Amino acid sequence: MRQQKLRAAIRAADLDGLIVTHLPNLFYLTNFLGTAGVAVVMPERVFLIVDFRYNAAVRSLAASDYGSPDTEIILVDRSYDETLVAHVRTLQAPRLGVEGSNLSISRFDHLRKSLGAAATLTPTEGLVEKLRIVKDPHEIEMLRRGALLLSAVALDVLHDAKPGLSEQELAAKVDWRIKSAGFERCSFETIVASGTNAAHPHAHAGERLLRAGDLVVLDFGGVYGGYCVDLTRTVALGQPDAEQQRVYDAVLEAQDAAIAAVKPGARAGDIDRAAREALGGHKLAEAFGHSTGHGLGVEIHESPRIGPRREATADAPAPPDDAIEPGMVFTIEPGAYVPDWGGVRIEDDVLVTPDGVEVLTNVPRALLIN
Amino acid sequence: MRQQKLRAAIRAADLDGLIVTHLPNLFYLTNFLGTAGVAVVMPERVFLIVDFRYNAAVRSLAASDYGSPDTEIILVDRSYDETLVAHVRTLQAPRLGVEGSNLSISRFDHLRKSLGAAATLTPTEGLVEKLRIVKDPHEIEMLRRGALLLSAVALDVLHDAKPGLSEQELAAKVDWRIKSAGFERCSFETIVASGTNAAHPHAHAGERLLRAGDLVVLDFGGVYGGYCVDLTRTVALGQPDAEQQRVYDAVLEAQDAAIAAVKPGARAGDIDRAAREALGGHKLAEAFGHSTGHGLGVEIHESPRIGPRREATADAPAPPDDAIEPGMVFTIEPGAYVPDWGGVRIEDDVLVTPDGVEVLTNVPRALLIN
Repeated sequence: MRQQKLRAAIRAADLDGLIVTHLPNLFYLTNFLGTAGVAVVMPERVFLIVDFRYNAAVRSLAASDYGSPDTEIILVDRSYDETLVAHVRTLQAPRLGVEGSNLSISRFDHLRKSLGAAATLTPTEGLVEKLRIVKDPHEIEMLRRGALLLSAVALDVLHDAKPGLSEQELAAKVDWRIKSAGFERCSFETIVASGTNAAHPHAHAGERLLRAGDLVVLDFGGVYGGYCVDLTRTVALGQPDAEQQRVYDAVLEAQDAAIAAVKPGARAGDIDRAAREALGGHKLAEAFGHSTGHGLGVEIHESPRIGPRREATADAPAPPDDAIEPGMVFTIEPGAYVPDWGGVRIEDDVLVTPDGVEVLTNVPRALLIN
Repeated sequence: MRQQKLRAAIRAADLDGLIVTHLPNLFYLTNFLGTAGVAVVMPERVFLIVDFRYNAAVRSLAASDYGSPDTEIILVDRSYDETLVAHVRTLQAPRLGVEGSNLSISRFDHLRKSLGAAATLTPTEGLVEKLRIVKDPHEIEMLRRGALLLSAVALDVLHDAKPGLSEQELAAKVDWRIKSAGFERCSFETIVASGTNAAHPHAHAGERLLRAGDLVVLDFGGVYGGYCVDLTRTVALGQPDAEQQRVYDAVLEAQDAAIAAVKPGARAGDIDRAAREALGGHKLAEAFGHSTGHGLGVEIHESPRIGPRREATADAPAPPDDAIEPGMVFTIEPGAYVPDWGGVRIEDDVLVTPDGVEVLTNVPRALLIN
């Protein structure tokens, strides 16, 4: 089904096939999960090139219900690109697309030179990524289960945040819980940002010890069945002071407003503006420097981007402000970051339904006081 | 120092500067550790472009002993590439290199169009990577400490491998120990491959329960001070049978032979051949399908590649077979993989010294029987 849709997109681009080098796209199309691999998607067949390391894995995949149909496995001889070139030469001078955002200039030039007249290569943009924006029922099922499992992890993790523990120790505990819960791996490097460190939205967990009076931002995620989920909560160590509670409530209000704006037909910019205006009402607009959310799927950051509408410039027209459709899954994660004070972020994962929105994660959102 | 060497390479390529987009190279040059960022290295200055999220981090770096000299921080306005283009326009029509193996075709085309006559962009190959192959004293110190710390982790981890635990549970335990030991993160996804699963050199840890009679391959690593170390041991659960002991001993002999071949002036292909011939002596040449080792540094896989010498083809000349020099750090990790039976791999990290070799990791190499 995914391959059929891709073939329609390939034909619409006036191409005979597509060389798929972006590994998340390879997984999406074939269920093959490795750290190397190339596919050539042709009208009747998919050629999947993998190296010796994956020989056994790819053959058991092919024999399973999850193997992609009409797929021929080709083992690497010497190098990926030599094998790819040798294989493409056996096709009949095809017009092949390559993935322009993934393929490096060096590799593109090398492939073109090696192929000579045996094929023409044309950069394409996001042919597979566009298919991935709206999730199919299997993907929604994986994301739903992942979000529930991550919520269960969160209930434990949030109570682990206690004075005396270092950020790194707490992050290691989070990671251990994620993997023990059955996730394949963490979907990104766990963030534990305490006290003034939380003023950096993407702080690395460091050696700082958590202490009473801190707000602690915990942002973590897992990969379940190949799909990424993502959750953030901010915890208070001891009774919060008035400013901590005020900023927390403002971010929570922004998240409520953004979630309420999610529905088919809305624009991503509308959802983002809802969060931004709520924070602005508390004089915290300047403290919110990132986008309100990002798509979730085979990658932890994918389309749609839930951010401010971008205006046209002298150099570029305004990019499209994604129309929200049923089947999209993304995060809603407003935050407020105040230098030398700290920060707050609250993040949940939502699915766009035909009627509006379903919040897939399920963890209390009131400020937890440890 | 690193920047000075790079500037010499830039001048030798007849360029005025280099746009650095590969993040490990960015870290190497500036010590900035983020998930996004671009640098423009010019003769007198380095311009480091980062977004809002890293503002506080990059300013505290600049104020520390680890900040790179003569670096000017530029905050992203709207997008990285718009900011980059606007900044390059303020320089005087420079001839700039880009990183050909890192920059995508799409991004290259977009930058070229946006810059027009304001600059010329030329793909370059590995200008920074070439500097990174031979480590400086600070890097050797980080790798040495990392290797010792990882060895300490291994002593615990190897005893954790017991019948009844699942591969995933054991991998989670490994990860927890790595992070608790003070590593910044795992340097790759931990491999726990037991029984017949170990026939796949890069098996993911799965749901299989370890059981008596298994050989279990544990391959794991950490990042210390920004530098990656890597270690593999194979453990027997219960008394090994004759074939398990035979294959283990053959791999150990191959590792000994390869380590003995490491010295300044050797070729990478010599080291690889030493391992391969040892395995061949036990009729296991076919069972060893990967390279003998890979460089370690800011990335977990970098130059030199310790693999078979590649011959010239009709399409390409023979690539250089790296000459081994003091200051190189790489893994020595022969293995044997037998379908439907299992596998063995033994991996240590070595530093090339003026006199020969120093093994940085330090964990008993005899078959551990749990």
